[in-house]
Amino acid sequence: MSAHGAVDPLLGEALGKVAREVDAMFDALLPNDGRLAGAMRYAAIGGGKRLRPLLLMATAAIHGADRAQALRAAVAIEAIHAYSLVHDDLPCMDDDDLRHGKPSTHKAFGEAVAVLAGDALQAFAFEVLADPATSGDPFVRAELVQVLAMASGALGMVGGQMLDIEGEGQALDLAAISRMQQLKTGALLGAAVEMGAVLGKVPAEGRVHLKGYARDIGLAFQISDDLLDHAGDEGKAGKALRKDAGAGKQTFVALLGEGRAREQARMLIDQSIAYLGSYGQEADLLRAVARYIIERDR
Amino acid sequence: MSAHGAVDPLLGEALGKVAREVDAMFDALLPNDGRLAGAMRYAAIGGGKRLRPLLLMATAAIHGADRAQALRAAVAIEAIHAYSLVHDDLPCMDDDDLRHGKPSTHKAFGEAVAVLAGDALQAFAFEVLADPATSGDPFVRAELVQVLAMASGALGMVGGQMLDIEGEGQALDLAAISRMQQLKTGALLGAAVEMGAVLGKVPAEGRVHLKGYARDIGLAFQISDDLLDHAGDEGKAGKALRKDAGAGKQTFVALLGEGRAREQARMLIDQSIAYLGSYGQEADLLRAVARYIIERDR
Repeated sequence: MSAHGAVDPLLGEALGKVAREVDAMFDALLPNDGRLAGAMRYAAIGGGKRLRPLLLMATAAIHGADRAQALRAAVAIEAIHAYSLVHDDLPCMDDDDLRHGKPSTHKAFGEAVAVLAGDALQAFAFEVLADPATSGDPFVRAELVQVLAMASGALGMVGGQMLDIEGEGQALDLAAISRMQQLKTGALLGAAVEMGAVLGKVPAEGRVHLKGYARDIGLAFQISDDLLDHAGDEGKAGKALRKDAGAGKQTFVALLGEGRAREQARMLIDQSIAYLGSYGQEADLLRAVARYIIERDR
Repeated sequence: MSAHGAVDPLLGEALGKVAREVDAMFDALLPNDGRLAGAMRYAAIGGGKRLRPLLLMATAAIHGADRAQALRAAVAIEAIHAYSLVHDDLPCMDDDDLRHGKPSTHKAFGEAVAVLAGDALQAFAFEVLADPATSGDPFVRAELVQVLAMASGALGMVGGQMLDIEGEGQALDLAAISRMQQLKTGALLGAAVEMGAVLGKVPAEGRVHLKGYARDIGLAFQISDDLLDHAGDEGKAGKALRKDAGAGKQTFVALLGEGRAREQARMLIDQSIAYLGSYGQEADLLRAVARYIIERDR
């Protein structure tokens, strides 16, 4: 694996396969008729790295869960991620015109439709999880809902977005920015791994190491995003760059400098891989994801 | 019961009790710290008639469900209703400055916080339902999530809001406006009754009459809203009136005239009460709700 953006062939294949499967499942499950359905499909299908689905499905596979059922749960968590981007891009939020290399949803469909499409994608996520097709075991369905709802709500992803907004123009220290990113990005990455474990019927006490893995790659992911934002190329990123610094948002790079930020991300990734020590080869895909996070170029 | 706004004393007592219980449960379950939690509390606590919670709890009580558990489900559906009002009031949507007699959430907290508070209230609803405290039976928890997610998503409430937006300035006929309102308001009222039945472990085939009842009171509710909007008093309504007509939205009153609209609502209420024919006195509260819907003055 090269240090600059070449992806481990096994990981590249896994990411490509999951992305195709997620798109096909979105296509099968999302509503079809009308402008609202169109906006939901526009926001959900064909964009993003599908990192959360990969984490969920890889963890589910390690623990013997059914792949088709894991794919439904993966689509649910990706619907939450997609809705959060739609709302995050709104003019009253980050005001981004570009997402995944195309106009953001409110640019393509208008603001009102974007608000509603985001709202409907959130409801869709929980509808998919609660459907008996996602697991024949109602306990698993209810727990998937609980894990995803907690991770995406006021004490998770949305709470992190709120801290992000409140932090604009403020001098956040490393603890504050870590906490914000841990909620904004880390909570959902952690939920991806935990949902995979729920599908694999791993009891709560057996999920501690997996959650440690997810927490560390989550923070490393954000540091590497800041590094890419600092040094990157808009064409590859598919979105406007250096907006965070422009909006007076504190970044890890601004706080630590590029060298120490890179070192910190590397340390977190080593630590995340150490959390997988009790697993053998079956967890190699999770290890490859961890390395990819700091070696990707977009 | 008078024809103009006096509330059946039993119903008045039930509404007051449910409203106090819902506020107390919101207070116990919503997050406490920070501006996002403040906005969620502002939007959820102390406003509205709590009609959906009453429908849910009355239906649950008829079928022997635990009241404390029904209250949790009632808070979940009211959180969905509250989030929909927060987003509906946004400048890019209906642009309303007033809700329940106080500034709407974006007026009090800003637009970005209102978007996030709505998003977090939706996640909160599903988190509450999936929590084992809502029912010891995971099948009940998963089914509550499924019913509420379907009713509030693209083929339910949000779909109705979308039709409402698309219908602005268009000449909708009675079928189109009924369909829009059936989704926008009816779906969630129907879910309230169905969730009560789920908690009472009424099998799906036993819910048909209850859903007929809910469908009819839902439509009657909207016709009576149009009538109040047409004739009403802003002080009592706690929101701006005649906005719908001003925004070029078609209303039942504009389409049918006041007299026929009133007649239609009355017919729907008679029909809704007929659906309860297999129940005895235990359904008197549901009958009182039906009558209240067309006799209320706000």
